[in-house]
Amino acid sequence: MSVLNDIAGGAMPGTLYGIGVGPGDPRYLTLRAAGLILSVDVVAYFAKSGRPGNARTIVAPLIQPGREEKRFEYPVTEEIPVKDARYGHSITSFYAEMAADLGAMLAAGKSVGLLSEGDPFFYGSFMHMWRRLKNEAAVEVVPGVTGMSGCWTRSQAPITWGDDILTVLPGTLDEERLTQRIRATDAAVVMKLGRNLQKVKRAVTVAGRLADAMYVERGTMADEKVLPLSECETGRGPYFSMIIIPGQGRRL
Amino acid sequence: MSVLNDIAGGAMPGTLYGIGVGPGDPRYLTLRAAGLILSVDVVAYFAKSGRPGNARTIVAPLIQPGREEKRFEYPVTEEIPVKDARYGHSITSFYAEMAADLGAMLAAGKSVGLLSEGDPFFYGSFMHMWRRLKNEAAVEVVPGVTGMSGCWTRSQAPITWGDDILTVLPGTLDEERLTQRIRATDAAVVMKLGRNLQKVKRAVTVAGRLADAMYVERGTMADEKVLPLSECETGRGPYFSMIIIPGQGRRL
Repeated sequence: MSVLNDIAGGAMPGTLYGIGVGPGDPRYLTLRAAGLILSVDVVAYFAKSGRPGNARTIVAPLIQPGREEKRFEYPVTEEIPVKDARYGHSITSFYAEMAADLGAMLAAGKSVGLLSEGDPFFYGSFMHMWRRLKNEAAVEVVPGVTGMSGCWTRSQAPITWGDDILTVLPGTLDEERLTQRIRATDAAVVMKLGRNLQKVKRAVTVAGRLADAMYVERGTMADEKVLPLSECETGRGPYFSMIIIPGQGRRL
Repeated sequence: MSVLNDIAGGAMPGTLYGIGVGPGDPRYLTLRAAGLILSVDVVAYFAKSGRPGNARTIVAPLIQPGREEKRFEYPVTEEIPVKDARYGHSITSFYAEMAADLGAMLAAGKSVGLLSEGDPFFYGSFMHMWRRLKNEAAVEVVPGVTGMSGCWTRSQAPITWGDDILTVLPGTLDEERLTQRIRATDAAVVMKLGRNLQKVKRAVTVAGRLADAMYVERGTMADEKVLPLSECETGRGPYFSMIIIPGQGRRL
C-alpha cells in the first residue's frame, strides 16, 4: 500500500497542521492526517488533567517509539461554568501561552501537528490556535470525519434525504428554544449533552420526535453505545455523546 | 507505512460497503475507504451519462490496472424536475434494477464497494441502495469527510464556535423560507445551489449575512474556487458548489 504513502504526502518545516482525527475509530483517519502524524516533527494535543487526551488516544496506533510529542493540559473544563468570568480568564491565558509555545516551535522551523477530534473547524479547540497563529506561520487545516457522521453511521440512521434541513444544536440551549428548533427542522443532531441530557430528552419529546431519536455514546469507539433515546435512562451524557434525529425526506 | 495497511483492514465476501470518498481531494479519503477500494472484488459507482462519475474521479489514484468495476448510470438528472412524476418513476426503476444487480453480486459472494461522495449517510445516493439491501446482505457504511467540511476548511472559515447553531439548507427551498432560516441561525451551509444560486444570494442578503458568506465551488479539488458570495456573479452553481456562512460564537 505504498500508494497510500504517495497520496498522503509529508510535512513542511515551520508549518502548523490542524489535524482532524475523526470520530474515534482510527480507521476513519484520513490519509493526509495519518501521513502527517507519521511525519511532523512534533505531535501536539490537548488533554484534560489526569487523562490521556481524547484525540491522542484515537491516533495511538500511529505513534511510534521515540516520537516527539507536546501535551497541552486544559487548566479547567467543567468545574467552572462557561459563563463565569473565571472560566474565560483561565482559558484565555491558557490559549495565549499555548499559542506562544507553538509559535516558538514553528519559528524554530519545526513542523507541528495539533490533533483535533472530528473536524478541526467544527467546534474544535484548534480554532483558538488557528486564529492566534494564522498570520505568523504557515497553517494547513486537514478536515476530518465529524463525530456526528460517526454517530449517525453507527445508529444506522441516514441523516438527510432529498431536501431535508439539518439543524445542529448545542444541548446548552434552554429547553423552550431546543423544543422550537427541533420542531422546526427535518433532521437534528444535538451535541454537548453533558448535564443537559434530560432537558434535551424532554425537548425532543415535546417536539414530537422521541420515537425517531437515537442516543449515541462514544460512536465508532470500541466501547460505543447506541440506543433509542426513549430507552436512555442516563442522567448525564459523557463528552462523546449526542442525539441523532434522522430526516424523513424523499425516498426514491 | 504498512501500519496504514494494518489499520485499514480488508473486505469480507458477500458484503456491501458504502464508501464515503470525502470532498474531492484524494488525501481526504479515510484509511478504511482506501483499504476497501484496494481490496473489494468490485468497485461500483454512480455516474451521469457521458461523465466519468464524480466519486470515481476522486478515487482514481487508487484504481489499479485490471480492477473490476461496475458503473451505474443515472437515467435522468436535471432534465426533468424532481417533482415531476416521470422523474420519480425513472429514478425508482433505476434504483430497483441497480439493487437487483448489486444483490446478485453479493449473493454470488462478491464484496462490493459502492462509492459515495462525501459521507454516505448525508444526502448520499448510496442511501437508496442501503435501504433496499440492508436486510438481504451484510452492509458496512464507511463515514467520510463531508463536502461541507472540505468547503469551510478551504474558505478558512471555522464554521461553529462555542454554542453556535448550524443549519444545513438545500437551495431548493423557497426564498422566504431560506431568508427566515438564515436569519434564525448562527452558522449556515446552503447546498444544492444549481439554478437556485441567485435566489439563495438574495435570501442571504435580505437575512443580513452577505458580508460573512463565502461561495465555494469544487472545494478541495484541483480546480476549486473560493470567493466572497458578494463577488460571485455566476448565475448557476455547478453540482459541487455551496455557500458557507460561518458562526460568530464565543472566541476565547
